[in-house]
Amino acid sequence: MINIRAHLEQSVDANMLIDQQSQAIDTIKIGVIGYGYWGPNLVRSFAEIPGSEVIAVSDFKLDRLAKVRSRYPTIKLTTNSQDLLKDPRIDAIAIATPVSTHYDLALAALQAGKHVLVEKPMTVSSQQAMRLIDEAQKRNLVLMVDHTFVYTGAVRKMQELVTTKVLGDVYYYDSVRVNLGLFQHDVNVIWDLAVHDLSIMDYVLPSKPYAVSATGMSHVLNEPENIAYLTLFFENNLIAHIHVNWLAPVKVRRTLLGGSQKMVCYDDLEPSEKIKVYDKGITVNNSSENVYQMLVGYRTGDMWSPKLDMTEALKTEVLHFLHCIQSGNRPITDGEAGLRVVRILEATTQSIKQQGRLVELDLGKVAA
Amino acid sequence: MINIRAHLEQSVDANMLIDQQSQAIDTIKIGVIGYGYWGPNLVRSFAEIPGSEVIAVSDFKLDRLAKVRSRYPTIKLTTNSQDLLKDPRIDAIAIATPVSTHYDLALAALQAGKHVLVEKPMTVSSQQAMRLIDEAQKRNLVLMVDHTFVYTGAVRKMQELVTTKVLGDVYYYDSVRVNLGLFQHDVNVIWDLAVHDLSIMDYVLPSKPYAVSATGMSHVLNEPENIAYLTLFFENNLIAHIHVNWLAPVKVRRTLLGGSQKMVCYDDLEPSEKIKVYDKGITVNNSSENVYQMLVGYRTGDMWSPKLDMTEALKTEVLHFLHCIQSGNRPITDGEAGLRVVRILEATTQSIKQQGRLVELDLGKVAA
Amino acid sequence: MINIRAHLEQSVDANMLIDQQSQAIDTIKIGVIGYGYWGPNLVRSFAEIPGSEVIAVSDFKLDRLAKVRSRYPTIKLTTNSQDLLKDPRIDAIAIATPVSTHYDLALAALQAGKHVLVEKPMTVSSQQAMRLIDEAQKRNLVLMVDHTFVYTGAVRKMQELVTTKVLGDVYYYDSVRVNLGLFQHDVNVIWDLAVHDLSIMDYVLPSKPYAVSATGMSHVLNEPENIAYLTLFFENNLIAHIHVNWLAPVKVRRTLLGGSQKMVCYDDLEPSEKIKVYDKGITVNNSSENVYQMLVGYRTGDMWSPKLDMTEALKTEVLHFLHCIQSGNRPITDGEAGLRVVRILEATTQSIKQQGRLVELDLGKVAA
Amino acid sequence: MINIRAHLEQSVDANMLIDQQSQAIDTIKIGVIGYGYWGPNLVRSFAEIPGSEVIAVSDFKLDRLAKVRSRYPTIKLTTNSQDLLKDPRIDAIAIATPVSTHYDLALAALQAGKHVLVEKPMTVSSQQAMRLIDEAQKRNLVLMVDHTFVYTGAVRKMQELVTTKVLGDVYYYDSVRVNLGLFQHDVNVIWDLAVHDLSIMDYVLPSKPYAVSATGMSHVLNEPENIAYLTLFFENNLIAHIHVNWLAPVKVRRTLLGGSQKMVCYDDLEPSEKIKVYDKGITVNNSSENVYQMLVGYRTGDMWSPKLDMTEALKTEVLHFLHCIQSGNRPITDGEAGLRVVRILEATTQSIKQQGRLVELDLGKVAA
Repeated sequence: MINIRAHLEQSVDANMLIDQQSQAIDTIKIGVIGYGYWGPNLVRSFAEIPGSEVIAVSDFKLDRLAKVRSRYPTIKLTTNSQDLLKDPRIDAIAIATPVSTHYDLALAALQAGKHVLVEKPMTVSSQQAMRLIDEAQKRNLVLMVDHTFVYTGAVRKMQELVTTKVLGDVYYYDSVRVNLGLFQHDVNVIWDLAVHDLSIMDYVLPSKPYAVSATGMSHVLNEPENIAYLTLFFENNLIAHIHVNWLAPVKVRRTLLGGSQKMVCYDDLEPSEKIKVYDKGITVNNSSENVYQMLVGYRTGDMWSPKLDMTEALKTEVLHFLHCIQSGNRPITDGEAGLRVVRILEATTQSIKQQGRLVELDLGKVAA
Repeated sequence: MINIRAHLEQSVDANMLIDQQSQAIDTIKIGVIGYGYWGPNLVRSFAEIPGSEVIAVSDFKLDRLAKVRSRYPTIKLTTNSQDLLKDPRIDAIAIATPVSTHYDLALAALQAGKHVLVEKPMTVSSQQAMRLIDEAQKRNLVLMVDHTFVYTGAVRKMQELVTTKVLGDVYYYDSVRVNLGLFQHDVNVIWDLAVHDLSIMDYVLPSKPYAVSATGMSHVLNEPENIAYLTLFFENNLIAHIHVNWLAPVKVRRTLLGGSQKMVCYDDLEPSEKIKVYDKGITVNNSSENVYQMLVGYRTGDMWSPKLDMTEALKTEVLHFLHCIQSGNRPITDGEAGLRVVRILEATTQSIKQQGRLVELDLGKVAA
Repeated sequence: MINIRAHLEQSVDANMLIDQQSQAIDTIKIGVIGYGYWGPNLVRSFAEIPGSEVIAVSDFKLDRLAKVRSRYPTIKLTTNSQDLLKDPRIDAIAIATPVSTHYDLALAALQAGKHVLVEKPMTVSSQQAMRLIDEAQKRNLVLMVDHTFVYTGAVRKMQELVTTKVLGDVYYYDSVRVNLGLFQHDVNVIWDLAVHDLSIMDYVLPSKPYAVSATGMSHVLNEPENIAYLTLFFENNLIAHIHVNWLAPVKVRRTLLGGSQKMVCYDDLEPSEKIKVYDKGITVNNSSENVYQMLVGYRTGDMWSPKLDMTEALKTEVLHFLHCIQSGNRPITDGEAGLRVVRILEATTQSIKQQGRLVELDLGKVAA
Repeated sequence: MINIRAHLEQSVDANMLIDQQSQAIDTIKIGVIGYGYWGPNLVRSFAEIPGSEVIAVSDFKLDRLAKVRSRYPTIKLTTNSQDLLKDPRIDAIAIATPVSTHYDLALAALQAGKHVLVEKPMTVSSQQAMRLIDEAQKRNLVLMVDHTFVYTGAVRKMQELVTTKVLGDVYYYDSVRVNLGLFQHDVNVIWDLAVHDLSIMDYVLPSKPYAVSATGMSHVLNEPENIAYLTLFFENNLIAHIHVNWLAPVKVRRTLLGGSQKMVCYDDLEPSEKIKVYDKGITVNNSSENVYQMLVGYRTGDMWSPKLDMTEALKTEVLHFLHCIQSGNRPITDGEAGLRVVRILEATTQSIKQQGRLVELDLGKVAA
C-alpha cells in the first residue's frame, strides 16, 4: 500500500465485484430489543439472512451496545426501546429481554404496527398472553414466540415419528435438563429450563395435558426454586415428566419418548447422533389363561439413528418468521402455543407451592 | 486313566492335599428359600464363604431345583420350605421369594428359632414389618433386610462423603433408574426399582423424609404402574427424587447428590469410576446492596474419582450377616431400615393413586 | 427335616422328577488340561451343554484343583495331564495352558486319538502348528483353535456385512485394544492381545495379508514388549492396523472397519450396541475438468445398530466343536486358521526387533 | 426514530459513552493473508484483542473477501497479498494459506520487515524452514508457527505434569486423531492431522525422537494417503505413536500419555474434563527369587481431572505473539519448533513410501 493508487484500484475492484454478487432484494427491516444473552444470536441470524436487515438495536446497557457497534458498525443503537417502535422503517420487532418486560414491549410493538417475535416464556401470565394474541389478531400482525427447539432437526424428527405413527401410541415423554446453570432472580428453574420441554411437547405430542403435579426446592434464601420436578397428565395414559436443576455437577439434556411400537432417546449433547430410535418394547398377551404367567413379553430389535437436518434452529425459525410476515401464515409457535406453555407454567408454580397438589389445566380453549 | 491304579493314587493324593488346605471351622448353616432370580446369588455367596454352608434349598419349581443339583450336588433339595424350618442343623434362613410371601416365611423362620435374611422390600405392609421386628427382638434373633446396594463400595463412599461433611450441607438426592425391565404383576415399578434408592437414601442421607408426593402410570391394562416419579421432602431444604421406568429404551443408573461444598455423580454403569466428586457449587453473596445484581456466584474446580472397594456387595453383606449372628450386633440394614423403606413405599402407593397428593410419613418413631 | 421320613420322601420325589426331565443322550467326554484363567470357562461351558460331559481336569496347582472340586465334585482331578490322555473314556481334550506347552500337549493328545481344542495362540512357531495339522489330518481327528471372538454375534455380524458386500470394498481394519493388563513373561503383548484381532481379521476380511510392519517397546527390564503397533498390508489397498498396550490407564476395545459404501464401528465394551453401521463415506468425482477443484465428496446418512446374537461366544464355539466331532466337519477356526495367525505373530516379532522393517508373509500356501 | 432529532441525540449520546469506555492504546497492526478455513479465526482473534488491529486482509477469492466486508466493514481488502507487505502501517503478517505457499509469503513478509505468524506445517521442506529461521534471525523479527494446540489449557497441563515429574518417567505418547475429514490434494493425512500431535509432543515430551517408522494407504486414485500410522522412537524407551484417518465413521481425539508414576488420558472431545490423571501403574519387583513368579505388580488409585484454563487457545497464542513482538522474546512455538515438526513430516513421508522402513531423524542440531 506504498503504491496507494495500485492498492486503491485493486480494492475498488474487489469491492465492486463483491457488490455485483449481492442481489438487491426486498428485505424485512428488524429492530431487536435486548442484547444480553440471546439478543446477539437474534441479531446475527437476522443479519446473515438475505431477506432481512437489522436496522436498530436497543439495550439499556452501554457496554452491550458497544459490542454491537464493534461487530455491526452500521446498526443504529439506542438505550431507549421506544426509538425502535417509532422508526417507520422497522417492520418487525424481536424482543430478547427479561420475561417480566415481554408484555409491555410486545404490546407497544404491536400497537405500533410491528410484527413481533418474543422470547420464551411469552409472558409472566396467561392474562397477558391472551391480551397479546388479541392485539395481534385485531391488527393482523404476526405474533410468534421464540420456542427455538421446535425448529431443530431433532425435534422435527421426533414430531415426524409421532405424527407418522412410527412410535405407535405414545406412552410417555420424559426429560432431564440439568447443569450448573445461571441462577435467576425473577423466575424459577421451571420458567427458565422446563419451558424448553413444554414447548417441545406442545409441538411433538399428540394431545395436550389436562393437569400437572410439581415439586421443587430453593437452596438459596429468598431465591426461586433451583430444582424442580413436573409431572403432566394427558388422556389415554400418556404421561410426561420434566426434571430441571440449576445446581447439578454434570450437564444432561436427555429425553426419552416411549411408544407402543418404538422408543426414542434424544440426547441433545450428542454431536451428531442426537436421535436414536429403538425397536424395543413390550407385547401384551391377553389370551393367557393363567393369570400368574407372564403376560408381558419383550421385544428388542435394531437401533437406528436417522440423519437430521443440521441447519441452525434459529436460522430455520427466523426464516419461518419472515415467511409468515410475507405470506400472512400463522407461525408454528404462534401466540396460542406461547399461551399454552404459560398456562402450564402458572399451574406448575401453584402446584410447587402446595408440594405436588394436582392442578388442572384448561388448554382446550386455547388449543388450535 | 488306563493305568487305573496310578490314576487313583494320583487323585487320592491330590484330594488329600486339597483337604489339608481346607481348615475345619465352625460354620453357620444356611437354608435358602426361593431359587428364582436372586436365590442363586445367595446360594453362591453363602457357599463360597468359608464361614457358612448351605444345607438346603427349597423352591416349588423342580427345574430350578435341578439347577441347584447340577451345581451343588450335596445340597438337600425340597419343594416344601417347611422342611428347612424343621431342620435342626440350620441356623439361618435366607428368603428370596415374591414379596407377598416374605411375611409368612420370615415369621415362621423366626418362630422356628432361625436368624433371617429377607429380600427387599421386607414386606407388603408396615404392619407386617413391625410384627417381624417384634418377633426377632423377642427371640433375640438377627433380622436383616437384603438392601444390597448399601454394601457396595460406591454407596459406602457416598455415605462417607456425607458423614465427614465433605459435601457440606446436603441439598438433594436425585436418581434415575430406568431400563426395559421385567414387568411384575404383584408390585409396581416403585416397589421393584425405587426400593433400591430408598434403601440407599436411608443409609446415606443425614435425615429421614417427612412426606412424599408421587406420580405414575400403567401402560398395560390391569397391570401395576410401570413408570413412576417420587419426590421426598426432608427438613432443612433437602429434597430427593426418584425416577423409575420398566419401559425405557436405554439403561440408566445415575444418581446426583448435591451439597453446598461439593457434588457427586454416581453412575453405577461405569465399570470403575462409579463415583465422581465435583468441586462445583455456588457461593451466595448476601452483602450485595443491589438486589438486581447477581447474588449467586459459581465455583468450578477439579473433579476427583476416588478408588472404591470393589468387593462384591453380596459378599460383604453376607459376611456382615454372619458377623451379626456371631456377635449379636444389629445389622446396618436391620428390620427398622426395612420398615422405614416399606412405610415410604406404602405412602408412595397412596400418593400415586391421588396423582401426586402429599402424604406425610411418620418415620420418627422407627428411626434408629 | 426333623421329620426325616417326610423329608426323604419329599427329596426323593424331587430328585426323581428332576431325573425324569433330564434325557439320556450320547455325550462327548471331555478332559480339560489347565485350570488357570481360561480353563474354568471351558469346564463350565462343556459342563452346561447337554451334549458333553467333563470327565477329568488336570492342573499342576492343587489350589486350582480344589476349586474344581468345590464346584464339580464328580469330576476326576489330577496333577498329571498324562492321566487324561490315557483315560479311554475321554473323546476330546481341551488345552488351556501357557502357549509354550500347547505343542507337546496337543501332539500327545492327538497321538492318543483324542480330538483337540487348543487355546490361542495355537503354538509358539508355525513349524509346530504345521506338525499338529499333519497329525490331526493323518488321524482324522478334529483340531480346533479357540479363536473365541470369531464366535461372537458382533464378529459374525461384521463378517456378514463384508461377505454380503454391504460395506462395499473393504478399505481398512483398525483396532485399539488397550488396558492395564497382566504382564506376561513368556509372550509379548502382541501374542497376548493382538492375537484376538488377527483371528477376527482372518475370519472377517476378504483376503490375507502379504506383509507386516510392526513396532513396540518394553518398559520393564528383561520383559517382553508391553506396547506394540502392527500394520498389515493386503492386496487392493486394504490395510489393517492393531494397537495393543498392557499399560494403558483406560480400557479400549474399539475396531473401525472402513468400506467404500459403509463403515462399521465395533465397540466391544458397549453392553448392547456393539456394532454401529454408518452410512458415511466419500464419493470420488473423476470427471472433474479442474484438477484443483475438490474431487472427493462426502456422504453422511443414517446410522444403524443391528440386533446381535447375544449367545455367549464360548457356548457357540463349544457347540461347534462338538458338532465337528460328530459330523467330521472342519471347524471354522481350524488348524490352518491357527497357523495363519501364528505365522503373522512370528513375522511381527521379527519386524518389531528391526523397528518396523517390512516382513513378508507367505499365507497363500496355508490359506483354505 | 420518527423524532429524528431525539433519536440522533440518543444515539450520539450512546456512541459517545461507548467511545469514552474504549481506551486509546498503542496497537500492533496486523495483515492477514488467506481467509479460507483458518483465516477468519485469526482475523477475529486479532480484532477482539485490544492490543492489535487488523488493517487488511488478502485472499484471491472475492466471495471470501465479501464475508470479511460484511463482518468488518473497515478492514481493507485486496486480492493481492503484496499489498499487505507494502503497507507501511502493518507490523506483522499472519499467513493462513495452503502450505505450499507458506515459504514464499513468509520470506517476502520477513524481507518487508514484518513479523510473521505462519500456519502449521511451517513449510513443505526443512530447507525452506531453515531459510526462514535465518531470515528472521538476521532481521531480528519474530517468526512464530501457529501450533495452536500448544496454547490450550489441556496441553499446557500435560506439559506441567511431565515437567514437574508428576507422571514419573514418560513411557509413551499415543494419539488417535480420526474422523470423516476433508480430503486434501496437496498434502497427505500426516501433514494435515499428525502435525497437531507432532507439535504437542515437541512441547510436552522431555526429549526429541531419533527415528520414525510410518505406514499408510491411499484409497482414492492419485490422491495422497488418507490413513496413516506413525511410530517415533526416543532414547530411554520412550515411544510415541500417532494414528490419523480422514475416512473414519466416528470422530476420535484421544491421547494417552503413560508414565512410571501416573498416566493421563486426554480426550479433546470432552466438553470440560479433557484431562484425566490416573494413579495407575505397575510396580516391578526385582528381588523375586523365582523367575516364574509374577514380577510385575499393579497399582490402581484415584482418578483426578484437574480444572483447566478454558481460554480459547488462539487468543492465548495471539497474545503471546503480540507479547513477543513487544518484548523481543522468542515464541514458544518458534521457527525451530516448526522446523523440527517439518523434519519429522519429511522423514515420515519417506518411511511411508518404503512401508515402514526406519528413517533416522537429526533433530539434535535444531533442538533449542
